Amino acid sequence: MKMTIKEKILSQLLAAKGEPVSGQKLADELNISRTMIWKYLKGLEEEGYVIEAVKKKGYVLQSIPDVVSKERISPYLTTSHLGQNIMYYPICDSTQNIAAEKAREGAPHGTLVITEEQTAGRGRLERSWDSTANKGVWMSVIIRPEISPHLAPQFTLVSAVAITKAIEDITGCVAEIKWPNDLLMNGKKVTGILTELQAEMDRVQSIIIGIGVNVNQEVEAFDVSIQSLATSLKIETGSEVNRPELVAKILYYLEKYSNIYIESGFEPIKLLWESYSCTIGKRIRASLLKETLEGVAIGITNEGVLQLQLDDGEIRGIYSADIHLVNKS
Amino acid sequence: MKMTIKEKILSQLLAAKGEPVSGQKLADELNISRTMIWKYLKGLEEEGYVIEAVKKKGYVLQSIPDVVSKERISPYLTTSHLGQNIMYYPICDSTQNIAAEKAREGAPHGTLVITEEQTAGRGRLERSWDSTANKGVWMSVIIRPEISPHLAPQFTLVSAVAITKAIEDITGCVAEIKWPNDLLMNGKKVTGILTELQAEMDRVQSIIIGIGVNVNQEVEAFDVSIQSLATSLKIETGSEVNRPELVAKILYYLEKYSNIYIESGFEPIKLLWESYSCTIGKRIRASLLKETLEGVAIGITNEGVLQLQLDDGEIRGIYSADIHLVNKS
Repeated sequence: MKMTIKEKILSQLLAAKGEPVSGQKLADELNISRTMIWKYLKGLEEEGYVIEAVKKKGYVLQSIPDVVSKERISPYLTTSHLGQNIMYYPICDSTQNIAAEKAREGAPHGTLVITEEQTAGRGRLERSWDSTANKGVWMSVIIRPEISPHLAPQFTLVSAVAITKAIEDITGCVAEIKWPNDLLMNGKKVTGILTELQAEMDRVQSIIIGIGVNVNQEVEAFDVSIQSLATSLKIETGSEVNRPELVAKILYYLEKYSNIYIESGFEPIKLLWESYSCTIGKRIRASLLKETLEGVAIGITNEGVLQLQLDDGEIRGIYSADIHLVNKS
Repeated sequence: MKMTIKEKILSQLLAAKGEPVSGQKLADELNISRTMIWKYLKGLEEEGYVIEAVKKKGYVLQSIPDVVSKERISPYLTTSHLGQNIMYYPICDSTQNIAAEKAREGAPHGTLVITEEQTAGRGRLERSWDSTANKGVWMSVIIRPEISPHLAPQFTLVSAVAITKAIEDITGCVAEIKWPNDLLMNGKKVTGILTELQAEMDRVQSIIIGIGVNVNQEVEAFDVSIQSLATSLKIETGSEVNRPELVAKILYYLEKYSNIYIESGFEPIKLLWESYSCTIGKRIRASLLKETLEGVAIGITNEGVLQLQLDDGEIRGIYSADIHLVNKS
């Protein structure tokens, strides 16, 4: 990715790890005036970077803002496409809404829409999603695979595996996947995924993968009514998580697993998904639009459809439902 | 449908069939002043209606504009939902683009977006579509069925049957359906359908059915390069077609067949579709994204997938392709 001058200055300050960086050296290397260097540093300070000028030595980066801006994410990126175009909003209604609009307007494959705070975040079935400011990862990724729409639903499961792997890499802790689109830790929701599709009948135009991860919230950040249902990576692991690094890691695995799915089919992803699932092999109750079914979740098909074996032995394919684990009495 | 005052005045003028309608009577019935009546009549004249004031007798509707506005379509409507909300544009880039935006903003089930002329009409795979001013039907219908996305592709076929039936009712002539989305007369294209989907992975948000019908064009309206490929209802039947009536008839059959599909499955629609098809039973060449296949089209599945029997007997399911009829030498 081509870096802007601001990003180049920032990357030098970061690389110096607390040592001063000479203003003259920066000016020479970037072939701009020292006044321009000073202006860029002022710009960084406005974004929350704390930069100290040490006389006759140079500039020292004292602290970096806790934001998920392009400048903060880019240094961690190892992808070819995902996140190579970043649209950052300090606050917005919903990254999913913005991404859908940008997708229609032609935003390229891999575009990331990310924010600190959503005023109208939403989950599956238009349910609301609480997105505390600066404490989570609230993002939407636009991908444009050349596939038929009937291959699109599996991307919810591809995404679930990618996020689980990223969380495992960053925190050392493993989340469980609850079909179709939740990640749990200790039985509490830590991540939701909302995958939306824009398509012609025989061609995907774009898939928009919305991801909400509770990262650095304390227990008190959650309303009392949901404290038994929701948790954050910090609550579960005891450590603050570097959000830009987590974002980059999610994008890495999302790109990797998407490519595997498109090139080799769903089989390899399915194995990973099943290994992280807390649903398969368990007795569950599935609330569908028009009925409620109970039985054992015996697997998912290559179409991502949950296979539920009822007590009379019949196997039903579940395309859409809310799932609850049950203890048979 | 609730009529506006303008629509009420117009419907009285139309009902009078060339006889004068008293301005005082209109004012009394609608409980507004004669000055207001006069203002509404001026408004209608600005839209192209020719209204003569006959002294001491009243107003006579001399001619109606050849447009597909809400006022012109509504009197023909016999639907419960489709077309009950009409958004009319004398000119626009693409009804499909407008409908997609309105759908995202929450436009209700059945909303019709219709125009006289498109500056950037488009067909399948982003191909351009020529939309001559005031001579065709260029429209998009937003529907919001409560179904899973894997049931959505069939709506292209539902729409093809609906439009064929509407054309048959209005002109007495029968078009042939060429899989997946063209209607032909005498082997030339008279209608294109572009069906687009906005969906969560397990729920349709909206299906936008874009319909382009060549209606009253003369041969010269088509570029010489496509005169052997494209035709209009007028060219084929020799008669001018009442476009608002055709629109209302398309909406009627689209609503009827959509309801049958949602309630009873694809089987009954499939039978109709096959009876109008010029593809089934024929030898065809199918150009896919990465290969070209030749064989006999033996039917469609309940998923709307074309079944192609290759010469070695293998049957391939075709989700997306351009189809050409071939004569085996």
